[in-house]
Amino acid sequence: MSKTVLLATEKAFIAAAVDGIDGVCKAAGYTLKKLENYKEEQELLDAMEGVDAMIIRSDLASAKVMDAGKNLKLIVRAGAGYDNIDLPAAVERNIITMNTPGANANAVAELAFGMMVANARNHWDGTSGYELMGKTLAVYGFGAVARNLHRIAKGFGMEFAAYDPYLTKEQIEGAGAKYCAKVEELFDSQFVSLHCPCTDETRDSINFALISKMPKNAVLINTARPEVVNEADLKKLLEEKKDFTYIADVPPKNLAELHAMENGAKRVFVTKKKMGAQTSEANNNAGIQAANQIVGFFERNELRGQVKP
Amino acid sequence: MSKTVLLATEKAFIAAAVDGIDGVCKAAGYTLKKLENYKEEQELLDAMEGVDAMIIRSDLASAKVMDAGKNLKLIVRAGAGYDNIDLPAAVERNIITMNTPGANANAVAELAFGMMVANARNHWDGTSGYELMGKTLAVYGFGAVARNLHRIAKGFGMEFAAYDPYLTKEQIEGAGAKYCAKVEELFDSQFVSLHCPCTDETRDSINFALISKMPKNAVLINTARPEVVNEADLKKLLEEKKDFTYIADVPPKNLAELHAMENGAKRVFVTKKKMGAQTSEANNNAGIQAANQIVGFFERNELRGQVKP
Repeated sequence: MSKTVLLATEKAFIAAAVDGIDGVCKAAGYTLKKLENYKEEQELLDAMEGVDAMIIRSDLASAKVMDAGKNLKLIVRAGAGYDNIDLPAAVERNIITMNTPGANANAVAELAFGMMVANARNHWDGTSGYELMGKTLAVYGFGAVARNLHRIAKGFGMEFAAYDPYLTKEQIEGAGAKYCAKVEELFDSQFVSLHCPCTDETRDSINFALISKMPKNAVLINTARPEVVNEADLKKLLEEKKDFTYIADVPPKNLAELHAMENGAKRVFVTKKKMGAQTSEANNNAGIQAANQIVGFFERNELRGQVKP
Repeated sequence: MSKTVLLATEKAFIAAAVDGIDGVCKAAGYTLKKLENYKEEQELLDAMEGVDAMIIRSDLASAKVMDAGKNLKLIVRAGAGYDNIDLPAAVERNIITMNTPGANANAVAELAFGMMVANARNHWDGTSGYELMGKTLAVYGFGAVARNLHRIAKGFGMEFAAYDPYLTKEQIEGAGAKYCAKVEELFDSQFVSLHCPCTDETRDSINFALISKMPKNAVLINTARPEVVNEADLKKLLEEKKDFTYIADVPPKNLAELHAMENGAKRVFVTKKKMGAQTSEANNNAGIQAANQIVGFFERNELRGQVKP
């Protein structure tokens, strides 16, 4: 049966991605309705009429938005993070929620490595730096981004270690990484990259006790969620260890304060705004994957990418 | 027989590298004489007395310096480029000349990849960029740096092509790269990295006809010698192709003029001064390799790293 898909993007996809999404919808006999670069919530509420599924990016999918879509069965976040969807509200209304796992993963991993090299080579200032080869990169969470990091790390001749509470020792070792049984073990490595979701358990969990364990020229990389790092502890650590660098695509709330420290802008090296997923390839991947997941759901009851509260 | 080795470095090695060099000399029963951070040529001339071999970095090994070293048999440039040695003067005096091939290669390759990602991701400014995965990197010269680039490129999921007049099709394909029979073929790729020496044949050889063949978002990378790129043609190309980037660790002579162009500092993305080889690991590698080559020469007549006019 024909369906109507709403593409609701406050910040529009690139044209090639929209064409790809449109192509997937057309092939399934679906109608694609576009609401791009909108400014007011009311525009979104108005656009919900007759919509069976919606594709969003960082757009807020609130209870109000859901209520405006009487036929709404499915919300797909084209991307990884989905804290912009009110999940309990969706459950109450029997609306399925999904993200597009893996679509942005290589984009994020490439950004992280670029920033690691820029830091290791003193932001191209002509002075002597250090090499990544032979060092260890340890990841907290061995999902899609971390697997891409692992592939690139092998190219750089780095060692790789992983902690992931949802994977067994055999699964981690089978992928060719060193198994860490505890979070603590990650922090023996010079590079630690965070890929855990922000939950009650992980919030503020990356604290002074962990980071202060790290060796010389340590680098903590956060392309995931800022809240998992305890910001007061981060500041304390930066004051004590002059050779420590925090690389983040998700700036800490106390950024101005940290940047005011000696050599602060280099030691707390952040992107101007979150951009790990921002590549034309990732846009294409995530948008088209979202459209494919919608067709798979309605035509074949597939639940790839489903997320729950 | 015991020998005296002079370590003559206007810009000193890091302490760990000097310790390593000293260790190699001591193990062979040689004496290491150090002249570090010197300011005047006269200091170097005075230090030459009784020296059998010398290790230099960017220091000038002129005929005058050679004449000051009555016992001098060997000059080793700890690093790749050796145009600071007067090679014909060395031949006339029966002095052997060497560099340390490969010691800096990984440092240069890592720098190149860091700069490629920084460029692809708009210098972390928060805007959407592109990924390296799936693109092709083509190298002019498939020596030590290019082989390190190849390994890292595989990690990034890139394709790789090489032209090298000193290697056969079988050798290049055997290493897992696509064979280019002519220089022209390299320029079908989005990324071209130059690793040829500067000779009468290669000087100014990277010209408008070649660079203008490159596809969308093309990037020309030069970590070798600035003179191989025709600078007038580079300027013309930058004027015509707004999506072209020149990444260089060896700034062009007309840099100020190029940087004055629209978006010039990003489109002509250069290190503050040549730093590809400047890592603590490369310093260690090159210095210790130089000391080992000196011992190998005197004790076993080895000529590893020999360079000639």
